Amino acid sequence: MGKKLTKRAEDYSKWYNELVVKADLAENSSVRGCMVIKPYGYAIWEKMQKQLDQMFKDTGHQNAYFPLFVPKSLFEAEEKNAEGFAKECAVVTHYRLKNDEENPGKLIVDPKAKLEEELIVRPTSEAIIWNTYKNWIQSYRDLPILINQWANVVRWEMRTRLFLRTAEFLWQEGHTAHQTKQEAIDEAIQMNDVYAIFAEEYMGIPVIKGIKSESERFAGALETYCIEALMQDGKALQAGTSHFLGQNFAKAFDVKYTNKNGDLDYVWATSWGVSTRLMGALIMTHSDDNGLVLPPRLAPIQVVIIPIFKSDEDFNKVSSYIKPVIKNLQSKGISVLFDKRDTFKPGFKFNEHEIKGVPIRIVVGPNDIENSSLEIFRRDKMEKETINIDEVFSKVDFLVEDIQTNLFEKAKNFTNLNTREANNFEEFKDLINTKGGFVSAHWDGTKETEELIKRETKATIRLIPIDGATEKGSCIYSKKPSNQRVLFAKAY
Amino acid sequence: MGKKLTKRAEDYSKWYNELVVKADLAENSSVRGCMVIKPYGYAIWEKMQKQLDQMFKDTGHQNAYFPLFVPKSLFEAEEKNAEGFAKECAVVTHYRLKNDEENPGKLIVDPKAKLEEELIVRPTSEAIIWNTYKNWIQSYRDLPILINQWANVVRWEMRTRLFLRTAEFLWQEGHTAHQTKQEAIDEAIQMNDVYAIFAEEYMGIPVIKGIKSESERFAGALETYCIEALMQDGKALQAGTSHFLGQNFAKAFDVKYTNKNGDLDYVWATSWGVSTRLMGALIMTHSDDNGLVLPPRLAPIQVVIIPIFKSDEDFNKVSSYIKPVIKNLQSKGISVLFDKRDTFKPGFKFNEHEIKGVPIRIVVGPNDIENSSLEIFRRDKMEKETINIDEVFSKVDFLVEDIQTNLFEKAKNFTNLNTREANNFEEFKDLINTKGGFVSAHWDGTKETEELIKRETKATIRLIPIDGATEKGSCIYSKKPSNQRVLFAKAY
Repeated sequence: MGKKLTKRAEDYSKWYNELVVKADLAENSSVRGCMVIKPYGYAIWEKMQKQLDQMFKDTGHQNAYFPLFVPKSLFEAEEKNAEGFAKECAVVTHYRLKNDEENPGKLIVDPKAKLEEELIVRPTSEAIIWNTYKNWIQSYRDLPILINQWANVVRWEMRTRLFLRTAEFLWQEGHTAHQTKQEAIDEAIQMNDVYAIFAEEYMGIPVIKGIKSESERFAGALETYCIEALMQDGKALQAGTSHFLGQNFAKAFDVKYTNKNGDLDYVWATSWGVSTRLMGALIMTHSDDNGLVLPPRLAPIQVVIIPIFKSDEDFNKVSSYIKPVIKNLQSKGISVLFDKRDTFKPGFKFNEHEIKGVPIRIVVGPNDIENSSLEIFRRDKMEKETINIDEVFSKVDFLVEDIQTNLFEKAKNFTNLNTREANNFEEFKDLINTKGGFVSAHWDGTKETEELIKRETKATIRLIPIDGATEKGSCIYSKKPSNQRVLFAKAY
Repeated sequence: MGKKLTKRAEDYSKWYNELVVKADLAENSSVRGCMVIKPYGYAIWEKMQKQLDQMFKDTGHQNAYFPLFVPKSLFEAEEKNAEGFAKECAVVTHYRLKNDEENPGKLIVDPKAKLEEELIVRPTSEAIIWNTYKNWIQSYRDLPILINQWANVVRWEMRTRLFLRTAEFLWQEGHTAHQTKQEAIDEAIQMNDVYAIFAEEYMGIPVIKGIKSESERFAGALETYCIEALMQDGKALQAGTSHFLGQNFAKAFDVKYTNKNGDLDYVWATSWGVSTRLMGALIMTHSDDNGLVLPPRLAPIQVVIIPIFKSDEDFNKVSSYIKPVIKNLQSKGISVLFDKRDTFKPGFKFNEHEIKGVPIRIVVGPNDIENSSLEIFRRDKMEKETINIDEVFSKVDFLVEDIQTNLFEKAKNFTNLNTREANNFEEFKDLINTKGGFVSAHWDGTKETEELIKRETKATIRLIPIDGATEKGSCIYSKKPSNQRVLFAKAY
C-alpha cells in the first residue's frame, strides 16, 4: 500500500496505472509488454469468463481449442487479415537451444534447428480455424458451426498499458460458419447484443451499440459491430467487437458446402471477441480517488468482515457473535471474507479493502455485542451506518442490488451528460478539446474526411449507431450531405 | 463414422488413434505436432478442469496468469531445469513480418525486427514465475504463496500422438512458495494426493502413488511425487506429477524472506501439474472395441434419448411421452441430449453415441407409449433392458453410480491382475516381454543399473511406492542388496 493514490483530476493516466498495481490486479512482467495477472485480478476475470461462457452456451455455442501457432503460409492466405496483423507478429523460427560453448552455463539458439516454415504466434485465429473448418464442412448438414475458444493471443504492441494494451492478452474468440449471409449477419448482431447485455448487467458499464466505419473495421471483415463505452476522462473504449466476415475466409481457404439443392457454395462466417481489456474498462468506469470500485456481481469478495479486538478473549467473543452471520450470508451465495489476520491492524485492513473495491464492509467489535449492532459500509458511496445485527441479511441483499444499480446509473448519467451534438467543425473541435466525451455529428461517409478529422483533432469515429435516427444534415468537415449522425471521440 | 474401428487386440495403437478421431475428440492440425481439440473432447476437458479447479481452491489455492514467453536469460537461470527443456523449445526471434517484394501477396520475416533477446515459449513456468515471486516475497507474512495457472505450454516433441504427446498442450501448473522444507514437502504430497483422488473418483482410473527415481525426476526438482496408471495394453502412463523443488529456484532467482526471528533465508518451492494427457489416460483405460467409454462424472452427455418415428405425428406423440422424463432428469442435474435430428436414422445415432461413449441410451418409439415402457442401455456393459417409464428415474440414478463404480472396479481389477513380482532378471524379462503390466522388483538404487535394465528391456522405473513395505532383497540386475521393491513397466 504505502503511498497515496494519485487523484484522477491530477493525472488520470497515472491514477489508472497506480490503481491497477495498488489494487493487486496486475503488474508488468520482465517480458516486454506482457503482464502478470495477479490472483485478485484473475478472480475478477474468472467471474467475467464464467458469465460470458454461460451466455455463449445459452446461445448454442460450444468451446474448442485450436493451435497457438499459425504457419506463415496459412497466415497470409486471407490477404487483408494478414496485412492488418503482419506488423505486430511474434514469430517462432527455431525449435531448440543448445549450450553456448563460449559461455558455460548459457544457452544459444541452435542454428541447426531452424524451422522450414516460420510459425506466427496467433494474433487472432481465423486463419488456423478456417483451415480446419475446411475439413469439417461438406454439406448443409454440417452447418452451422458455432464454436468459441478461450485463449491467449499475442500482438506486438509498441506502447503497452496493463489490461488496456498488452503484447499478450487473454480473450475469447467465437468463430462461426453459416449457410446464408443473413444467418451470419444475425449471428454477428446477436453476439454484439450478448456483449452489450454482459457489459451493462454484469459490469455495470453502459454501452452504445453500432457498426464501425470502414477504416476502423477488423482486417478481413465486411462489417464490424461493436460496443463502445465512455471512461471518466471522456475517452471512449471499444469493449467488444463482432465481425461479419462474409465469404472472405471461406474463399481464402476454399471452404464450400453442398446446399439442399445440391449446389456448391462458399460458407458465410463471423468472429467475435472480448478480452482482458474489459478489465481496464471495468476499472476506469467505476473507480474513484480511494481506489477500485467493483460491481457486486463481479466482485470476488462481496462482503469483508473486519473484527476489532485487542485480546484473544475479545476476538473469540466477536468471532462467536459474527460467525452465524457469515454462515448465513454464504448459504445465500454471498462471498464473504472474514479478515481475522492478527498481523495487520484494522486501519490497514480498511484501507486495503477500500483500495481493492470490496463492495460491502462490516466492522464488529466487543461493544457491538452489547448493542446487538454492527457497522456496515458501502464502497460505492463511501457511506457507513450502524444497524441492528438482525437487519444484516436484508441490508446486504439490498446493498448487493443497490450498488450494482447505482454504479450503472451513475455511469449512464455520466455518458449521457458527455454525449453532445456538434453542428459545425468549430463546435466539434471545441467539444473534443475542452469537454471530451462522445460528439454526435454528421459525416459524409468517406475515409478521406474521417482521416482529416482524425489528423486535426485526434478524434475517431467510434461507431455509426445501429437504429440511429436518420436525419438529413451536412458533414461538419466537408459540408457534403449526410443522412445520419455518427459518434466521434478520442479513444483508448 | 464410416469404417469400423480397429480392434484393440489387432493393433492397440491404431485403435487409439482411430478412436480419438472417430469419437470426435481431437485431430491433428496443420501445425506439426499441435492438435485441434474438438468440442466433444473439449467438453470432457472442461469437466475435468472444473472439478480439479474446485479441488485446488478447496486446498487454498488461487489462480493467476503469467506470460507465455520466457526471456532466454531467465530460462537459463536454473541450470538443471534449463538443460532439461532446452532441446525442445520453440523460440521467438522476431516481432514483425513484411511484404515479400519478390512475391506479391506473400510475407517474410522482417530482418530489422529481430529481438535483442530471444523469447522461449514456456515449456513450463518455474523461471518466469520465480522471477516474479522475487518481488512478492519479503517476509514470512508474504508466505505461503499458493498459486495455480491454467495455460498452454509448448515442448517440441519429435514423435507426437493426440493427447498423449503433443507439441502444444493444455495444463495446469501449481507453483507454491513456503517458509519451511517440511511445509513444501507436505504441499507436494498433498497435491499428488489430490491428483490421485481426482483420477480414481472422477476419471475412474486406479492409480499407484509413489516417487520417481533420480533419472525420471523433473529437471530441477529434489523429489518428484507421481501417480501412475496401467493402460489396457499393459503399458504404464504417468498421469500427474508434483515436485518438491527445494530451494533450487529460490537460489537461482535470489528469493529470500525474513523469518520471524529476523533472519534471511531462501524460500522453499513446489510445482505440480496435470495436462490434456489425462484425456489419453481416460480414453485408454475404459474404452473398448465399440468405441469410447466414459465415466458418468466426466461425460458431457450422460443420457442420450433417441426417438423412433416415421411420421411427424409419431414424433409428436413420442416427444410428448418423453418430455416430462427429460425435464425431470435435467432438474436432477443429469445432462440429457434429446437427439431428434431427422437428418439421420436411428441406427446411425446408436452407432454415433456408442462410439462417443455416452453412458446411458434411452430409446422410445410409438409402441412404448401403449406399454408405458422404454428401452434403456448402458454403454459400459453394452446391456439393454425394457423398463416401465415410472422406473426411469431410479434406474438412471442407479446407472450413473453403477457405471462409475463398475469402470473403476474393472480397471482396478485389471491393474491388480497385471501387477506381478519378479525375483530375478530372467523372470523380469519374461514378464515384461510376454505379460507387460507393472513388475515389482528389487533394485539397487543406482542410475547405472536402472539404465542397463532400460536398455535391455525398455522398461523404466515408474515409481518407488510411497509407504511401500520394506523388504530385504537383492537387486534383480546387480544382485546388490535392496530394502524395497520398486515398480517397473514399459511406459507411454
